[in-house]
Amino acid sequence: MMKIDILTLFPEMFAPLEHSIVGKAKEKGLLDIRYHNFREHAEKARHVDDEPYGGGQGMLLRAQPIFDTIEKIDAKQPRIILLDPAGRRFDQAFAEELAREEELIFICGHYEGYDERIKTLVTDEVSLGDFVLTGGELAAMTMVDATVRLIPEVIGKEASHQDDSFSSGLLEYPQYTRPYDFRGMTVPDVLMSGHHENIRKWRLYESLRKTYQRRPDLLENYAFSDEERAILDQIKEELQ
Amino acid sequence: MMKIDILTLFPEMFAPLEHSIVGKAKEKGLLDIRYHNFREHAEKARHVDDEPYGGGQGMLLRAQPIFDTIEKIDAKQPRIILLDPAGRRFDQAFAEELAREEELIFICGHYEGYDERIKTLVTDEVSLGDFVLTGGELAAMTMVDATVRLIPEVIGKEASHQDDSFSSGLLEYPQYTRPYDFRGMTVPDVLMSGHHENIRKWRLYESLRKTYQRRPDLLENYAFSDEERAILDQIKEELQ
Repeated sequence: MMKIDILTLFPEMFAPLEHSIVGKAKEKGLLDIRYHNFREHAEKARHVDDEPYGGGQGMLLRAQPIFDTIEKIDAKQPRIILLDPAGRRFDQAFAEELAREEELIFICGHYEGYDERIKTLVTDEVSLGDFVLTGGELAAMTMVDATVRLIPEVIGKEASHQDDSFSSGLLEYPQYTRPYDFRGMTVPDVLMSGHHENIRKWRLYESLRKTYQRRPDLLENYAFSDEERAILDQIKEELQ
Repeated sequence: MMKIDILTLFPEMFAPLEHSIVGKAKEKGLLDIRYHNFREHAEKARHVDDEPYGGGQGMLLRAQPIFDTIEKIDAKQPRIILLDPAGRRFDQAFAEELAREEELIFICGHYEGYDERIKTLVTDEVSLGDFVLTGGELAAMTMVDATVRLIPEVIGKEASHQDDSFSSGLLEYPQYTRPYDFRGMTVPDVLMSGHHENIRKWRLYESLRKTYQRRPDLLENYAFSDEERAILDQIKEELQ
């Protein structure tokens, strides 16, 4: 069973996780997730933040409540993840890495910054992307969702994630469902043909074209089959 | 006042936004945010998803409930944002762009994919990053949080975001708060000196060094002052 501990001043913000895959993982006994309001472990009248040495705007999270809260968590070899815009960018490979761990601890800030000494505790500084959030809570929830769905047996076989974007390494091909004609927009003929091999080829072509046009960076380390290489050459020629 | 409409099958997942900056923006009368469960607008017994034409695993969101829900929203010139892993990467520049709009609509999926024809409705396909989530809700909440805090007057002057990472273009320098000595780890002397010019220089040096070591890509389009250029040259020499 995976164990996740989250340090936050706003445990109630995590309610949405219970509606999502995290709730299912808990029901199946695959996940134990706990929230720790580190204000409760702050010395000096629940004082979690203070002014920066050297001057400047904003308040910084103090080291003491974070250190003391983590020491009270009974974790053996946890990955301790600090949400920080300067950290490693979170991506699917990192989610897969986290999904193989037994104990994760996330530290969410909600002020202008941290006391630098908190970083001596952590194993990973991680960023959700190049943008600024009010606090780390939404970033932590996002990372937990992406990670927990990869734990074996959390998602049933029927909804495997082998077809996900980023799992195959290519962006997804266009998909259509009923009706055939929606407000004059119809479904491509090949998808109506019942010809499985043609459908497979059309989808592969569309995936490769979309990836080439929108995210050529994903193709740089992609392990092409001979068929895929030939299709990509054709696409490049057509788009010239 | 900014108007945000969110199409989702799980409106209750958005509760955390009310705890965050979004709640404050609403209180100040700067934001009107509404949630639309598009299941309520689905024809055929609240049927929101169906199987893909051409075969394959998973269920796709049907076009009809999304089209009908958006038509019922009284919006003049909205930005209509579809959360899609193949979309433009969300970043601070995009948050700033959205913060200048009057009407935003977010479409959150919660299935394996969309009917492609939904894309004819949208102005922006946007991705939070290269990872797969259970649904679009957490991504939408994250984008809303990053956007709303940039609306003028939402954050008070005392907590300006001029010092944010990504607003200055550099990563943040290390910060420290009380106590001076925490478990034997002390604050750098310069920050205790009271010498404002030395503190400013030390912080600039640390910001540049961290950015150069961790995110050299941020420096590619950075508008250096003469002082910054000289410090960066010094850093490069020291790290050789």
